[in-house]
Amino acid sequence: MIQQPGYRTEPWAIRERDLDLERLAQGESVFALSNGHIGLRGNLDEGEPNGVPGTYLGGFWDTRRLPYAEAGYGDPEQGQMVVNVTNGKVIRLLVDDSPFDVRYGTLGRHERVLDLRSGTLERDLEWTTPAHSTVAVRSTRLVSLVQRSIAAIRYEVRALDRAVRVVLQSELVANERLAVAADDPRAQSAQQADLLAVDHDHAGLRALLVHRTAGSGLYVAAAMDHELEAPGSELHEVEASGDVARMSVGATLQPGESLVLIKFLAYGWSRKRSGQALTDQVLAALTQARATGWTGLLKEQRDALDAFWEHGDVEIEGDPALQQAVRFGLFHVLQAAARAQQRAIAAKGLTGPGYDGHAFWDTESFVLPLLTYTLPQAAADALRWRHSTLRRAGRRARELGLAGAAFPWRTIHGEECSGYWPAGAAAFHINADIAAAAARYVEASGDERFEREVGLELLVATARLWMALGHFDADGRFRIDGVTGPDEYSAIADNNLYTNLMAKRNLTAAAATVARWRQAADELGVSEDEPGGWLAAARVMRIPFDERLGVHQQTEGFTAHARFDFAAAGPDSYPLMLHFPYFELYRKQVVKQADLVLAMHVCTDEFTPAHKLANFDYYEPLTVRDSSLSACTQAVIAAEVGYLDLAHAYFREAALMDLDDLEHNVRDGLHIASLAGAWIAAVAGFGGMRDDGGQLSFAPALPAAIARLRFRMLYRGSTLEVVVERREVTYALLDGPAIVIHDRGEAVELAAGRPVKRPLEAPVKRGEVPRQPPGREPRHQGRHAAT
Amino acid sequence: MIQQPGYRTEPWAIRERDLDLERLAQGESVFALSNGHIGLRGNLDEGEPNGVPGTYLGGFWDTRRLPYAEAGYGDPEQGQMVVNVTNGKVIRLLVDDSPFDVRYGTLGRHERVLDLRSGTLERDLEWTTPAHSTVAVRSTRLVSLVQRSIAAIRYEVRALDRAVRVVLQSELVANERLAVAADDPRAQSAQQADLLAVDHDHAGLRALLVHRTAGSGLYVAAAMDHELEAPGSELHEVEASGDVARMSVGATLQPGESLVLIKFLAYGWSRKRSGQALTDQVLAALTQARATGWTGLLKEQRDALDAFWEHGDVEIEGDPALQQAVRFGLFHVLQAAARAQQRAIAAKGLTGPGYDGHAFWDTESFVLPLLTYTLPQAAADALRWRHSTLRRAGRRARELGLAGAAFPWRTIHGEECSGYWPAGAAAFHINADIAAAAARYVEASGDERFEREVGLELLVATARLWMALGHFDADGRFRIDGVTGPDEYSAIADNNLYTNLMAKRNLTAAAATVARWRQAADELGVSEDEPGGWLAAARVMRIPFDERLGVHQQTEGFTAHARFDFAAAGPDSYPLMLHFPYFELYRKQVVKQADLVLAMHVCTDEFTPAHKLANFDYYEPLTVRDSSLSACTQAVIAAEVGYLDLAHAYFREAALMDLDDLEHNVRDGLHIASLAGAWIAAVAGFGGMRDDGGQLSFAPALPAAIARLRFRMLYRGSTLEVVVERREVTYALLDGPAIVIHDRGEAVELAAGRPVKRPLEAPVKRGEVPRQPPGREPRHQGRHAAT
Repeated sequence: MIQQPGYRTEPWAIRERDLDLERLAQGESVFALSNGHIGLRGNLDEGEPNGVPGTYLGGFWDTRRLPYAEAGYGDPEQGQMVVNVTNGKVIRLLVDDSPFDVRYGTLGRHERVLDLRSGTLERDLEWTTPAHSTVAVRSTRLVSLVQRSIAAIRYEVRALDRAVRVVLQSELVANERLAVAADDPRAQSAQQADLLAVDHDHAGLRALLVHRTAGSGLYVAAAMDHELEAPGSELHEVEASGDVARMSVGATLQPGESLVLIKFLAYGWSRKRSGQALTDQVLAALTQARATGWTGLLKEQRDALDAFWEHGDVEIEGDPALQQAVRFGLFHVLQAAARAQQRAIAAKGLTGPGYDGHAFWDTESFVLPLLTYTLPQAAADALRWRHSTLRRAGRRARELGLAGAAFPWRTIHGEECSGYWPAGAAAFHINADIAAAAARYVEASGDERFEREVGLELLVATARLWMALGHFDADGRFRIDGVTGPDEYSAIADNNLYTNLMAKRNLTAAAATVARWRQAADELGVSEDEPGGWLAAARVMRIPFDERLGVHQQTEGFTAHARFDFAAAGPDSYPLMLHFPYFELYRKQVVKQADLVLAMHVCTDEFTPAHKLANFDYYEPLTVRDSSLSACTQAVIAAEVGYLDLAHAYFREAALMDLDDLEHNVRDGLHIASLAGAWIAAVAGFGGMRDDGGQLSFAPALPAAIARLRFRMLYRGSTLEVVVERREVTYALLDGPAIVIHDRGEAVELAAGRPVKRPLEAPVKRGEVPRQPPGREPRHQGRHAAT
Repeated sequence: MIQQPGYRTEPWAIRERDLDLERLAQGESVFALSNGHIGLRGNLDEGEPNGVPGTYLGGFWDTRRLPYAEAGYGDPEQGQMVVNVTNGKVIRLLVDDSPFDVRYGTLGRHERVLDLRSGTLERDLEWTTPAHSTVAVRSTRLVSLVQRSIAAIRYEVRALDRAVRVVLQSELVANERLAVAADDPRAQSAQQADLLAVDHDHAGLRALLVHRTAGSGLYVAAAMDHELEAPGSELHEVEASGDVARMSVGATLQPGESLVLIKFLAYGWSRKRSGQALTDQVLAALTQARATGWTGLLKEQRDALDAFWEHGDVEIEGDPALQQAVRFGLFHVLQAAARAQQRAIAAKGLTGPGYDGHAFWDTESFVLPLLTYTLPQAAADALRWRHSTLRRAGRRARELGLAGAAFPWRTIHGEECSGYWPAGAAAFHINADIAAAAARYVEASGDERFEREVGLELLVATARLWMALGHFDADGRFRIDGVTGPDEYSAIADNNLYTNLMAKRNLTAAAATVARWRQAADELGVSEDEPGGWLAAARVMRIPFDERLGVHQQTEGFTAHARFDFAAAGPDSYPLMLHFPYFELYRKQVVKQADLVLAMHVCTDEFTPAHKLANFDYYEPLTVRDSSLSACTQAVIAAEVGYLDLAHAYFREAALMDLDDLEHNVRDGLHIASLAGAWIAAVAGFGGMRDDGGQLSFAPALPAAIARLRFRMLYRGSTLEVVVERREVTYALLDGPAIVIHDRGEAVELAAGRPVKRPLEAPVKRGEVPRQPPGREPRHQGRHAAT
């Protein structure tokens, strides 16, 4: 493992003390700001040098051709990709006759801080020009969580030792050139969309560019306005042309004097509205932002974050690095989701171009559990986005000869964009994942309107899919053949246990929901008999089990396959997919990511405690975690079966995935689902929270390294606080109506102001902790190891 | 089914009476001439109109990029494709001032005949110009089976009603433009290679062009020389430039007078030799051809074909259309293989650009059985070609983490060119098919030198592959997981029965061959213990069987899958691969082509007669024959289990595949393996010939429609003749040392001059003949149905 210089361990901030140009692209992801609608990578204000320049808009996409050496029927011919839209972050600085560039002159100081409570990225530096003039620069950037279309930057340059002439150029730049680099074949297309210039305008200190995508025909408008604070006279001019708009301001600064520029940025896009309507929309947003003012924006941002942390914070005592990482993760999940508002939440959020900006099952299976209990409106919005794509999913199902809805494995706008079907379209479990997320949200929120408008139809459409996908075999069992489960190192296999159990849940939940909304179900054409068929299939769902080994099978026949020869592969062969053909992986016992183990988390009551232990012991030595969607689930089940230190190690891996760049691809964007997984590891792992089966239950236990864990959850309109200590757990209702929860199987009634304490026993010492494949031990040996 | 106008039924010729421009491309394939080194499609002499202009050289290829929407490790990035090389067939005719083109003026008569005994394509026509002059044209084309580098054309134009001025232009044309049309995604890449001009020259009536491929860097030289017979004075000139060489001759013909042009063509290519060496090589070939002369070439051709028919002919009484089709097939297999000489025999031979000119398992599994017994040297050459690619196959095996050799699924030069691995690289059975072909050739020929030089190493390398691919499971059985069998509507499955049985044969044959060539095996590093391991694996090879149904399983778990809903798909859904995604096909019980049924043919003694019948009855209603490699095998097993009329129908389908254009893709080239399969249907079907297990055995039986079947085979240096009649079979040794064969289980000793007659009983009437999927009954309803 490469030792990363990394960031300082602080509870509420990510602080970078020095600028390392080698790690520039990683920092751009870590320091990305977003509200789910606008995403600004943490590129330097002056635009260059950069790793990956990036400005993204939620749900905005262009098309790319998907080529095949040998195409098959149903292979999508056109994909979608996130677009690096007009860059409004750029503020260039000229000091005397030297353009500010960190690669020239002398950088006396350079610090950046992502403040998790103020929701700002601060930059503080001192630079001496090649001609020996020194200036101090301080910039503060925010993307407003309150005003969805708005970002803003305060940029201050100050003369230090002698008088300098300075010029600031604040720009909007479209069609920036991107560096191309990706060795993960799925990570990102080398193609880059071109934006076609449609309109440009300027007036006063304001300028605007309107562009259109070449393939998808979407319009995007970006506008900027400015406020200036200069010590004396200052000169400024504004210009705009097709791909560039520029506001330039020049001033002479005496030592100690500053020039301050406040830049308000507004973005909007639309598929249906005209360029003129968009223009007006962003100009109105700018007007509102200027009315709010810079300090107003800062205050709104702080208030919004205070409210989030009030419900969402997770406190961990005993592991400061983990504490920081968990908050970093929560902050970025918030940024990805807060104002996404019925657009896809991408796997990378709006932090980078990785995976072409696509959303996967990550959203429903890892991000929504967190949002459901901390920011429920965002969870509902994400599901409303899925619901808005139902017509496309229905068309896809019919194209595949199926019924109901077949949601895409990867997409931005709802069409299938997977170019390798065995690990894409065949992963039908995404449909059950969506159904489970909808059921979970309804269960946790009690939101009946959502259930009737969104949940019901999602559950019915996916239940119908499973009935078309599966069949009753000669033994009368319901089988689902030839699909791919979460583990992408197996594919096109029969009776994937995770898929079958999730389909079972899907069918059962659909039947229950139809029973609650019989009239609305009529409108969807659900006959009186149809739910009975769903329940019949659910009852006899095939669950593969190996009698000889006494463990469940990930897929039918899995345990008869040869074990992958990890020793022969050697420690430099990870991720295996870059060193072995899928052919070799699919046919061996090797697991990319939690699959059966995930089933044990989300379908907890389908397994006895003894089977959970046996299964974990069996699959752990086969699981290489070549996906970021694994550590958090392994943490949850390791905790449940009693491997608490191992659970802690996995918790750290999930939480530190990006701060420590464990998969060496943070340059392409953050792993939003792994960051959300850190919350899952905390709450479902050491809190033992389970929410399947219509009740909220807990079974807390702490590892040696964590002295105290506190988290809060929104449940049925109430705020629940759980404090886990070594010998006791405290459940408290902070507000809202009384609720019933379960603590280790026993019902506990909670009312506001009457916390309940329950003792915890010392965890049973497990003798033999299962070993991971050599070289794939949990990766917590880095700088954070010594906590 | 579209009623094809088709060809006249004649025993030794394919005669086309009228020119149908709609079917031009199909005719170009049917009338293609080849010797395995040069392939000339049956394009009209004057070059246009054409369907697919084509001039090919065996083993000659250029590269093409293989693109992927999401690439995986080990996916080949570069493919190979056959090249349409310099076209030397072109002879243009100007009559007075009208260029001869069948689309203009009036075609009074147009007949083409492919003569299966003279090995020539004759064309006879009468054309009246738009200005009302009429000429008769007669051309005869041949590709020499004796002089490998030589083709020749005799072109005669005669004035009929009045004097005409005529000009003939005989050309070499490189970089012709191709029409692009293919709806089978695997059929052919839209890309067309460019040839780079290297050299050109002319002298006397001779001209020459040398080109180089852009990607693969191969050199090709094409040269022409001419002889002229003109009634009086004639003018001629010769010119050559980069892509065109032209010999023009003009004459005035009085009514009844002719101008005759004899064109000698020579082709050569090389990867290693210089352009100059190639130039000399083709000029030398031209010199030899001119010395032989046109009539000499005709005579050599006739002699070579007489010799082939002497061993190879199959006589069928009672079905003239089938008789013709079988000879047509034998002729084209001969053309594909005769002088291929250690280059790949492509699936389309050299008759068209289909499948990019690649060779598949077709060669070893369908073409070589025929060649082994009729043209054994060509079988040995084809296997020597495979052997010459062993180093590349070894590299591929290591790339896949395996051992021994992994031969490519599709290739021209030996590298894997499959762009969809589940139906390409995963079809490892090709390695056992190659091993079986080598063992068969050794067994049939007794060629010990070949066994030591080629067979031993092929068998050892493939045996090692199986040991790396398979493993011993907890029951002690040897399993081969995650591979694709012959049926391309299943993929990546465990224990494909065909693959496992063929691997068993491979391992056993390798051990036996090592025992015979112990010292040579030492040189290959085969330890004393290694063959013991092979035999141990072979002994416990896993054979999936469904106890409840009493049938073998095509792959493990196959019979538990849902049956494909043929009724819902409807009769317009074939081939299914163009209407359903692979996802849907793989997970259902639907069979593209004989797979388990093929195993019952080539591993006959692994099945009891009762299992053969039960298996055939079970798989027949699942088999759609969306591949041309199925009907012949179904004919063989239908005959064995007693469905003789069904066998006859399948025999006809295999034989008439191309003459009736049953798969609507003859335009891209002929189905050489299906044509060879017609021989298999005759000899292994109604002759009941089996050659696995070290003995040659027969079990003849005729369907109602065939009164008599006669075929000959070369076996251990002897010529065996088998005559099957309704009540008796006669085995005769025509020459060579005595041999022992088996007739229905009994050994029969045959010596020259002492034929043995054995009675045949009337076949048992089977009650219920299994039904094919609706709409997929054997396709013999066409013009040939009324025999």
